[in-house]
Order: sequence, then C-alpha cells, then structure tokens
Amino acid sequence: MEKLTDMTFTRAWQKLQQLAKTPYDLTAAGALEAEGRLENYVSRSRLLKLYFATERVDNAVLLSLQALADELLLVDQFKEMRRGKIINRIEGVESENRQVLHTACRDLFSSSPVEPVATGQAHLELEKLRNFLAELHNGQLLNHHGKPFDTMVHIGIGGSDLGPRSIYEALKPYGISGRKVFFISNVDPDDAARVLAEVNLGTCIVNIVSKSGTTLETLTNERLVRSLMEERGLDPAKQCIAVTGEKSPMDNPNEYLRSFYMFDYIGGRYSSTSMVGAAMLGFYMGFDRVMEFLEGAATVDYEAEESDIYKNIPLMLALLGVWNHNLLNSTNLAILPYSQALHRFPAHLQQCDMESNGKSINRQGERVDYKTGPVIWGEPGTNGQHAFYQLLHQGTEVVPAEFIGFAKSQTGQDKNVQGSTSQEKLQSNLFAQVVALATGQDSANPNKRFEGNRPSSLLFAEQLTPKVMGAILAVYEAKIAFQGFIWNINSFDQEGVQLGKVLAKQFLTAMTTPAVDSESLEKRFIRQLFGREQ
Amino acid sequence: MEKLTDMTFTRAWQKLQQLAKTPYDLTAAGALEAEGRLENYVSRSRLLKLYFATERVDNAVLLSLQALADELLLVDQFKEMRRGKIINRIEGVESENRQVLHTACRDLFSSSPVEPVATGQAHLELEKLRNFLAELHNGQLLNHHGKPFDTMVHIGIGGSDLGPRSIYEALKPYGISGRKVFFISNVDPDDAARVLAEVNLGTCIVNIVSKSGTTLETLTNERLVRSLMEERGLDPAKQCIAVTGEKSPMDNPNEYLRSFYMFDYIGGRYSSTSMVGAAMLGFYMGFDRVMEFLEGAATVDYEAEESDIYKNIPLMLALLGVWNHNLLNSTNLAILPYSQALHRFPAHLQQCDMESNGKSINRQGERVDYKTGPVIWGEPGTNGQHAFYQLLHQGTEVVPAEFIGFAKSQTGQDKNVQGSTSQEKLQSNLFAQVVALATGQDSANPNKRFEGNRPSSLLFAEQLTPKVMGAILAVYEAKIAFQGFIWNINSFDQEGVQLGKVLAKQFLTAMTTPAVDSESLEKRFIRQLFGREQ
Repeated sequence: MEKLTDMTFTRAWQKLQQLAKTPYDLTAAGALEAEGRLENYVSRSRLLKLYFATERVDNAVLLSLQALADELLLVDQFKEMRRGKIINRIEGVESENRQVLHTACRDLFSSSPVEPVATGQAHLELEKLRNFLAELHNGQLLNHHGKPFDTMVHIGIGGSDLGPRSIYEALKPYGISGRKVFFISNVDPDDAARVLAEVNLGTCIVNIVSKSGTTLETLTNERLVRSLMEERGLDPAKQCIAVTGEKSPMDNPNEYLRSFYMFDYIGGRYSSTSMVGAAMLGFYMGFDRVMEFLEGAATVDYEAEESDIYKNIPLMLALLGVWNHNLLNSTNLAILPYSQALHRFPAHLQQCDMESNGKSINRQGERVDYKTGPVIWGEPGTNGQHAFYQLLHQGTEVVPAEFIGFAKSQTGQDKNVQGSTSQEKLQSNLFAQVVALATGQDSANPNKRFEGNRPSSLLFAEQLTPKVMGAILAVYEAKIAFQGFIWNINSFDQEGVQLGKVLAKQFLTAMTTPAVDSESLEKRFIRQLFGREQ
Repeated sequence: MEKLTDMTFTRAWQKLQQLAKTPYDLTAAGALEAEGRLENYVSRSRLLKLYFATERVDNAVLLSLQALADELLLVDQFKEMRRGKIINRIEGVESENRQVLHTACRDLFSSSPVEPVATGQAHLELEKLRNFLAELHNGQLLNHHGKPFDTMVHIGIGGSDLGPRSIYEALKPYGISGRKVFFISNVDPDDAARVLAEVNLGTCIVNIVSKSGTTLETLTNERLVRSLMEERGLDPAKQCIAVTGEKSPMDNPNEYLRSFYMFDYIGGRYSSTSMVGAAMLGFYMGFDRVMEFLEGAATVDYEAEESDIYKNIPLMLALLGVWNHNLLNSTNLAILPYSQALHRFPAHLQQCDMESNGKSINRQGERVDYKTGPVIWGEPGTNGQHAFYQLLHQGTEVVPAEFIGFAKSQTGQDKNVQGSTSQEKLQSNLFAQVVALATGQDSANPNKRFEGNRPSSLLFAEQLTPKVMGAILAVYEAKIAFQGFIWNINSFDQEGVQLGKVLAKQFLTAMTTPAVDSESLEKRFIRQLFGREQ
C-alpha cells in the first residue's frame, strides 16, 4: 500500500458490496445452526471469546472481511501505532502530530516492550504510585488528626472521568475495605455540592486530573473544593494530588502532595490505563489489582497483532461493525452488558468511540463520501429489556448490538428462586435476546410479529475481574483504532470540540460584562432566555 | 377525520415534503437573527419555555406543522386520551384494549378533573400514602428496636425503576434530612449485593414495585432481600411495602406492611406520577413535595390541550421531532440536560420514548411505510462536550438534539472562579453548543470545518424544583403521545418484549434441566459458551 487509504479502494470492498445485496438470512429455518455456525463463528483469545453466529455474515463474507483487513494492512497499522509512529495527524494540514501510545503504559509484562521509552515512563509513574500507596497503607501519610485517608475525590471531566469512573463502578467489589471514591466532573455547581455533602473532607485525598492543567471545569471544581477545605481549617497542599502533564501549571509540589504524570502521546479517552485511571484505582483497590487490570489490557494488545480474525477479537469486532454500518446501513450501535457492574461502561465507550471516529475528513484532509463512526449507546441488561428493547425488536430502525456477558457473577451472593439462580436467569435472558433479535418470529397477529435479522455479537468471559476488565477495555480501544484505519480517518484528535469552547467564552463575556455590544447575538440570546440583561 | 390515520394522508404533509427539499439554512450569515427568530421562535408555558430558533424551520414550515397538528386532530386525540378513551389498542386484532390515564393521577388540582374515576382512585392512594408517611414521621411506625426508618430500598425494573430513580436523582437536594433511597433492579445478583453491602436493613423500608406482582426480576430480588432480613432476625412483613395491582399476588397484608395500588390504565413507563414514583418520593422528600411534583405535571397536561403550537410545548416538540426525523431523515435524538441532577433522565426518556414508539404497525394493524420512533440517548452537559460532542459537530451522522437548561442551580452553592460562577460557565457552554451546532464554522483547515445545520431546541426553566421536574416529565410524556398519534401507532403497548421472555424461559429450562433434548439450539448454545453442559 503506497499511501494510507480507505476501504473503498480495495478489491475486498467490491466483493463485500456484492455480498451485502443478499446478507445471510438469520430468520430461515435452522439458520443459526447451519454450517456449524454456533461452534465455528467464534473468535477466541486468552481471556475472552467473541460469538458472532447471530451476525448477518456467512463464510464468503468472513473471507472478504479477512481480505479487507489484509489489503488495508490493518494489523500492520496497529503494530506501527504501538511502536510509536506519529499517526495522530492529518497530512498536509496543521494537526496534533503525536504518537498514540496508550498501549505502552500497560506493556509492562514483557522483557522487551515494543516501545521502550513510553513504557519506561509508565514504569517510573507506577513506581511513584506504588510508593505513595505504601505510605498511605503503612501510616506514613496520615491526615491532620493522624487518621488514615479513607476516601478519594476524583476531579476530572471527559477522558479524565468517564473511563476511570466506569472501571471503578465495574470493579467495586475489589476495593480495599473501608475505602471509597467519589467523582466530580460537571461544571454544574450542583455536581460538586452533592459530592461534598456526602464526604468527610478531613479524610479525603483529592485527586485532580487534567493533562493540560488548564481544563476549565476541572480547575473550577478544584478551586471550589480547595476553598471549602480552607474554610474547614484543612491544608489542601497536604491532601491534593495531581495527575497532569509534566511541567503543566498543576505540576507544583507547593500545591500538591504528589504529581503523577500523563503524556501527550495518550489521549484523554484512552487514558484509563495511565495514571489517570491508575492513581484512583490504586487508592481504591491497591497496587496489585491495578497491575492485574493492566495485564489484562496488555494481553489483548498483543493478541490484536494477530492477522487471523478468528484469533483477533478487536479486529473481528471492527470488521463486523463496518459490515453492519457501511454495508447493511445501520447508523447506531448498542452496547449491552449483562452485568450491572458495567452500567457506566457504555457511556465510556460512547465517549471513546464517538470522539474518536465521529469525523468527516480522512487522513489526507479530504471529505469522506462514506459513513464513519456510528452513534453508540447502551444500558445493562436485563434492565434494558424492560426499557428500549421494544424498539430493538419491533422498531423501524435496525440497531446492531454488542452484548457482553459472564459465566459467573462477581460476588457469588446468589439465591435459588423458583428453581434457578439469579445468575442463571440473567444468562438465560442474555442468550434469549441474542437469539430473538436474530431469528424473529412470525405470527398471525401483526403486533406479535418480529422481523428478526437484527444482528448482534456476544463478548463472553468467565468473570468480571480486574484482569478481564482490562481486557475488555483494550478490546474496544483496539476495535476503535481498527475502524479508524478502515475509514482512513485520524481517530486520535478532537477538533470538533473546539468551536463550542470558543463560543462559550464569547457567551461568558456577554454574561459577565454588562455594557458591551448590547445587540450582539450573545446578548440578545441571553436576554431572551433570562427575560433581562445579565 | 373518519378514522385514525397518519401524517402521510394529510395535505399538510404534501406541503411539508416540498418544504423539506430546502430546509432553512442556519449557516447563512445572520440566519439565527433573521425575522426575529430569537424572540419569536419560542413556545411558552407557565413553567417552561421552548426555544427553537436553532431548528431548520421557517415560518412556512411552522404554519404547515400547525396545519398538520390540526388536520390530524392531535389535540383532540390527546383530550380523548385524558378523558379515558380506550386508545391502547390495535383495531381488529387481539390487543391490550385499555385506557391510557397516567394524566389522571395528577389531575388533582381542579375541582372538576377530566376523568373523575381514575383521579378518584389516585386521591385514595395518595391519602393512604399521606397516612403512612405521617406514621413514619410521628413515630407510630418504628423498627423492631424502636428506631425510625431512615432508608428505603426500592425494588422494581423498567418502568418501575428508571422513571422514579431518575426523578429521585433529580430532586436529591429536596430530601428529608437523613433519609436515603437505594434501588435494586437488575436480576444480576451483583446488583442486589452492592446495595445490600451499603444499607442497614434494620432501618429500611423495602418497597417492592410490580403491577402484576409477578415480574421475575423483581420477585427474585425481593426473595433475596427477604431471606437476608430473616437471616438477620428481622420480620419482612413489618418492613416491606408493595406497590402493585389490586388483588395481585403481592396485595397481601400478611406479607406487606402496606399495599399501594397501581392500575392497568397506567403503563409502567408512564407510572412515575402514580404510586410507583410517589411512594418512594414521598418517603424521601415528604408528601407536600410530591404534591408539588404532581402539580407541575398537571399544569403541562392542561397546557397540552392548547391547539396553538406556540402555547403547547409538547406539541411543538413533537412536530419539530417529526420534521427532523421523517422529513430531514435523522435517525437519532440526543437529550442533553445541562444539569447534573438530570443525569439519569435521558435513560428514562430512552425507555419511555423507545418502548412507546419503537413500533412497525399502525393502529389498524398494517405495516407502516415510514419511520416511527427514533433512537434516544443522552448524557448531561458539560460532560458530554468532553465525550461524544465530537460526532455531533463533525460526524457523518446528523443527530438532532433537545437541550434542557435552567437559570439557577439547585443548591446555589457556587463560587466565582476567574471572573464567573460555575452556573454562568455551565450556561455559557449550553448556549454556545446550541449556536455552534446550528451555525457551524468555515476554515481553511478542513479539520477545523464545522458544517453546521445540526438542529436543536432548548427547553428552559427557572430552576429544577419538584414542580418543574413534574412539568418536564409531563412535557415528554405528552410529546411521545403526540408523535404516536402523528405516526398512527399505539404508543401504549410493548409486544416487542414478549419474544425474549418466551425464549428466556426455554434457555432457563435448558440450563437447569441437564438431560433433556441435548441437541436443542439452547443446549448447543450453552455448551459453546460454557465449554461444558450446565
């Protein structure tokens, strides 16, 4: 391949367009069992399996998807990413021009990491974290009354919030006894007020997370918390820690007990396995469990270099997604974990995927003439079944789904009611939905008809442990990267958030500067909404 | 109108299809200010205003939308609904054949309610609730150690969970000091385990919510909690209350301290203002604040009978939604509240809207040949700005948005940082997003180009109080009903959830009955996933 290009220039794509005219009919009698689909339509890895018998694909489609992956050198591009090539860029125009190395901060378990510089930096930060956690544990670091810190308030937004928060929620049963974490993210003052009403600031480590050290929402919430600490006679410098870029305004030992560094080669939405997630998770569940989490992610990063799509789950997931989105014309993707612990994980993926692949120009700066990233959303089952599944089954919009399930519950606190455990009921519902969406059902009553042919896959693991959480996270991060390569877009910048920031400053000036330019759009807008000048 | 029909049979629709070929261009210079749009493109009601200058409509479109509403007798259909007509039905086939009277349970503030029977029942249940809350308050009802109950565990799923939970979250600052509510919904055993690890069961009222009294998830969680209470020497019959249908298996004074009734004319997803929400909210914030919440909803129900779309916010919202969805061909709708308190409200609307309008047959049982309900999702701003807004601004999919904002924060605990308060920053960001999505921005750098013409509206109120929460909820309930009328579908059944239930039973049998039919699809599926027989 001379230069980076998109799927429409490949031979495989021509073939796939042909095949998409008659996609596999999942509603035909025996369709799910034909050709050993149940047994053979599976990608396998150490910690996870991906079942896709309920996707609208057959052997010919799968062959062409493999060919597409090969023609576009997807795995080679992934390898280059992991090895530090500058892929966060748009050719010929001003762009971020950065490496993309979130994988490096978990490449800790090999004697020869693929990008030793970044992994070396990760080792240093982890060592700092290990020491900090040990001091908290052994009583070297105590609060002003000589009591241990038992709570963390994590202040961040976007990438510094959603990923870490969703993983904290997912791994709640693995915490050190007595420790809790609270999160403040929104600039809405009610967000901070709620958290501050619940915590005892005297025993809190306040963890402020901002790569630039200048994120407006985060700094505002930090100031709010600091001034409340001062009002209560506490010394913020003895309780606040920073996760920030080296030499950022927040990298200041006079104001922070510790600073942990994040680096510009890791984007916010990919930063859960960096100090952005690790500092908080380490406080909550201890250093060893953070390492398990990182090891799970590292396992998948290595597997994502497999060229065989049956051995590379993120690659298979990416290809099936493009099949559904670009060739079968869906617009959405529902992420449906059958695990309450993952209740915020779809929100993290919504961020990670939509911010990465919600783009309209390719890596050469040209407008694309095909669809890029889908709209991503989801809620855990079985709750969702009692909510939006009506539309999934009988609506006019076909929404492909990615289910996530586990053989065992986390806590094992279960009970047999009416002949089965809760976990068995949960799984039965999961399997039933996968099948029902695919096969549908005919009926004489038109209101009881289910069209079927609504594609889904199932990512399955033994149990949601720290290691498996790391693996699932890494599967999605790699999937998003692969889809970005297929669409030939830069998945790693976010220019689309800039215009809002600029206009917000103009509105803020209009709101806080009474006299100026009273007929500006901003002034008129504000006057309308508030019924008065501000 | 001889019989109920859909929008495609109206004259207004022909006109709208013409107009949709050249929708208003929001990116043209001065487009937002032309024709007094900022001042005139507003629907007003007592508690709320709806700003839609940033929708792709002009005066001609608005006239035709009004004509569409008139031709389809939308307001008349709404009036019939409120007055008890059996509209939960499909002509000529077996269907639920029920009234739709969620509005009746808040029509409490008029001396002549429009459907006196149902409102009479609501009054009776509220009186029971008032007495129960008084007994909790004045010490008549105490726990086995003579201490007051300070916690409620609310067990329900779907409609019995999402609405009440999202409103509890929204109104958290209005609680009675010291009272808390926890929710268990998922059949995932880890959901119950988490809640039970956090509460002191000895001071809990356990509120079990199931209309039929047979919801599998809810009953399972109830059994789990009851047996734990028994293990700890507590008497569940003295701490459990039921919200259920009269004469359901749960309407049993031997097992429940109290039963509050819900009626088959109120669907689960519309039940937040019935006892389903009121029992929990009453425990949390007291009877008077529940009445304020209901009054806010009642206000909007009456306003929804206005035929003028400038005075009827839900009707305007419904029509703008159909314009975007059916005529400008969007598939999604993002609900974006600029209030952290509303962080679960989009999930409730996702349920309420997608379960209501995710249908493919009309009220005569015929397959529709147009799109019905959109996919609904959302997260609060400013958080979302740091997450998925990239796609909203620069993705290949146009996602219309409904913003929600408030003049004041709930708690007023705010601080001036860098010359402005958090609330001012929050609002500036809200207004900036509304404008940025509409106008877009050109640039020499293709990566800094924003196409604009991404439509949105802004629902705005003074402050998120119980009354305003009731009003916002009722706006969306009425909006969904109006859109159902426009699409000529039955928004009040949910046959699409049945197939999954049937198949789940088959899987459960296969999982818990080792020997039977070992080559069934279910058995083979399970064997694959678990690598063994169950």
